[in-house]
Amino acid sequence: MTTPPERLQPLEITQQEHRERRARLSALLQARGLDAICVFGPTRVAYLSGFHFAATERPIALVITAQETSAALLPRLEELHFQQQSPEITDLELYAEYPGGGEGRHPMTVLRGLLARLGLLGKRLAADVDGYEHRWGYRGPPLSEALGQPVLADVALVDDLRMIKSAAEIELMRVACEWGDHAHRIMQDAIHIGADELLVSHGASLQATREMLQALGERYVPKSREGLPANAMFIRGANTAFPHGLHRQGSVQAGDVLVTGAYGTVGGYESELERTMHVGDPTPDFERYFAAMMAAQQKGFDALRPGRTCAEVETEVRAFIRDDLGLDQLVRHHTGHAFGMEGHEHPFLDLDDHTVIQPGMVFSIEPGLYVPGLAGFRHSDTLLVTETGSQLLSLYPRELAALCLPG
Amino acid sequence: MTTPPERLQPLEITQQEHRERRARLSALLQARGLDAICVFGPTRVAYLSGFHFAATERPIALVITAQETSAALLPRLEELHFQQQSPEITDLELYAEYPGGGEGRHPMTVLRGLLARLGLLGKRLAADVDGYEHRWGYRGPPLSEALGQPVLADVALVDDLRMIKSAAEIELMRVACEWGDHAHRIMQDAIHIGADELLVSHGASLQATREMLQALGERYVPKSREGLPANAMFIRGANTAFPHGLHRQGSVQAGDVLVTGAYGTVGGYESELERTMHVGDPTPDFERYFAAMMAAQQKGFDALRPGRTCAEVETEVRAFIRDDLGLDQLVRHHTGHAFGMEGHEHPFLDLDDHTVIQPGMVFSIEPGLYVPGLAGFRHSDTLLVTETGSQLLSLYPRELAALCLPG
Repeated sequence: MTTPPERLQPLEITQQEHRERRARLSALLQARGLDAICVFGPTRVAYLSGFHFAATERPIALVITAQETSAALLPRLEELHFQQQSPEITDLELYAEYPGGGEGRHPMTVLRGLLARLGLLGKRLAADVDGYEHRWGYRGPPLSEALGQPVLADVALVDDLRMIKSAAEIELMRVACEWGDHAHRIMQDAIHIGADELLVSHGASLQATREMLQALGERYVPKSREGLPANAMFIRGANTAFPHGLHRQGSVQAGDVLVTGAYGTVGGYESELERTMHVGDPTPDFERYFAAMMAAQQKGFDALRPGRTCAEVETEVRAFIRDDLGLDQLVRHHTGHAFGMEGHEHPFLDLDDHTVIQPGMVFSIEPGLYVPGLAGFRHSDTLLVTETGSQLLSLYPRELAALCLPG
Repeated sequence: MTTPPERLQPLEITQQEHRERRARLSALLQARGLDAICVFGPTRVAYLSGFHFAATERPIALVITAQETSAALLPRLEELHFQQQSPEITDLELYAEYPGGGEGRHPMTVLRGLLARLGLLGKRLAADVDGYEHRWGYRGPPLSEALGQPVLADVALVDDLRMIKSAAEIELMRVACEWGDHAHRIMQDAIHIGADELLVSHGASLQATREMLQALGERYVPKSREGLPANAMFIRGANTAFPHGLHRQGSVQAGDVLVTGAYGTVGGYESELERTMHVGDPTPDFERYFAAMMAAQQKGFDALRPGRTCAEVETEVRAFIRDDLGLDQLVRHHTGHAFGMEGHEHPFLDLDDHTVIQPGMVFSIEPGLYVPGLAGFRHSDTLLVTETGSQLLSLYPRELAALCLPG
């Protein structure tokens, strides 16, 4: 039996899918009575063109019209790089360098020239954000100021398209989950008393990456020059009581609570997996909070289904934590968030987010309980919304017995 | 002989220095006739308060007045974390969650309430940027729209203070350079024919980090939960002809050109080091371009001194490349950039940047020559501007003989 041909495809979004995304955006512009949009956000540029790049002080923008034409503003040093990744967008407006490279023109002035050439000045223009955001040392005016005309700035124009994942996107996230799970397994096996947080985490990530590259071979296509494609980390002790605790130096002690995080990155898409663990025999207190957190997460799994709003899911989870568990005072954040190309994406499973949940959305479910001075308790999993409910894409064990380390 | 006591201090900026930075900003506001500033940029928040955090969709802002009072807008989940890192800023305005967490108020509305409580509504307000930038799934109005009043948005208000590094900042960058150099040495020693780019890079980074943590002990204070504090990477072959080539999978071949990058991160400050290398005996073509690049970099070293402008430095380097080398057509970017807390910072050694160079500024010097189809040629070093000229902080060998690998 031979390998099915679809398993040999590169693990990335095709040019055709990028073209379809641009066409959907053009249709949206038409429906909204807009003539064109300037897209500055690097993830949105990658979403619409396949061009993944290191975002710096040098502005990059896509211009997409209601008539389905596309152009790009680029610094000259990205020209070949763009052509390689986005061969279908051929109208390129290049500038020498930021802030000017001797041309005496700011990149926003060059963008104004591109819009003039396309006959778009004075037309109904939109943007994701009103000008290039101030990365690194970038300084520049809002787009509306550079053009001297109103610009409808709304990230939702692109990001609402990103909410519902295609079959190809879901497949990339599924593979990312496999490798996030695998990195977590390697890390769990490597944690021992006296182990250093940073070194064990990165050692496990490197080992998982080695196995991932070997297994995927040419199918794996890097989209970033930062980090590893299979990652695992953990924080320990009282530091876990901070939901976003930074990585601390220190070594694992008997009795430690660990909160972990692991993810894969495949074709520009991520997974999410987090676990609460214990070194040695857990105390009754630990067991009680752990069980409560598990029950709250299960409530989140059950509540996630199409047709209801994010706020309805969150209301159900929070009512459970408040009324059934009596632990509302330990909550520090909402139950979860959508994600895909970025670690968090719109919408959020929050009491004030009334977005309707639809099949193809992907959420984390991660209600957390934070006990000051003791520890944080949080599992996070990746769930795909299906036609009737949801499906777990991260498949790592959740039970306490599987998450206690030798003490 | 005992270790001098200053060598035992934690490698981070003190609370006192953060307080002095805020006082300088307050004085600037007074001089500019402004009553207060809202600071949203995560690096600027860290610069002014010592609060380093994972920037997400949850807005964080500092409010600093001309009267030297400070307050912070925070999501509740960062409260303890902020108190731990920035104990001197005690006026905290907390919101439940983004987008609302059941309070029914957007974080920008909560910020408006804080400004009202401080008596700042209707006053002359500034901001680094006009509202929280659209990280991850964040959606929200410009600050000026949320307040219904004009806001002077100018990143220079804070970033101009960051241009000249203090003695403490320079010391952190000097230590960062030591560990960037060390990571590069470990990586260079590990590269061999057949070695995988990603695995060798990260293996070397992990080994360097292990040695760094052991050497610095408790003096090393992590400021980020991403990445390693000692890092080295490289790209190879024709991919080096892209100035910002992404990491590619593949193994080192005889005859490969490598372009490397290495840095340390200490107390939130970075170093920069890049080298062009060759696997096996270099060809005459390679030697010619390498020598040209080295000469251009030396020209940059010599040109960097206080009292002249960035554009004057760049003019001199570019004239040398054009007139002496005859290679202007191979240039893809300007000669260098300031940096410190971020990989690139304002100002830039660019023909259109007329900032006057001053002692205490730190720049990369990295003129590059990009030969399509052959390779890129670029060394980058970290230089401190002194009273009379400049001083190299990165001390890695630059000569071809030291950068050829066994072929």
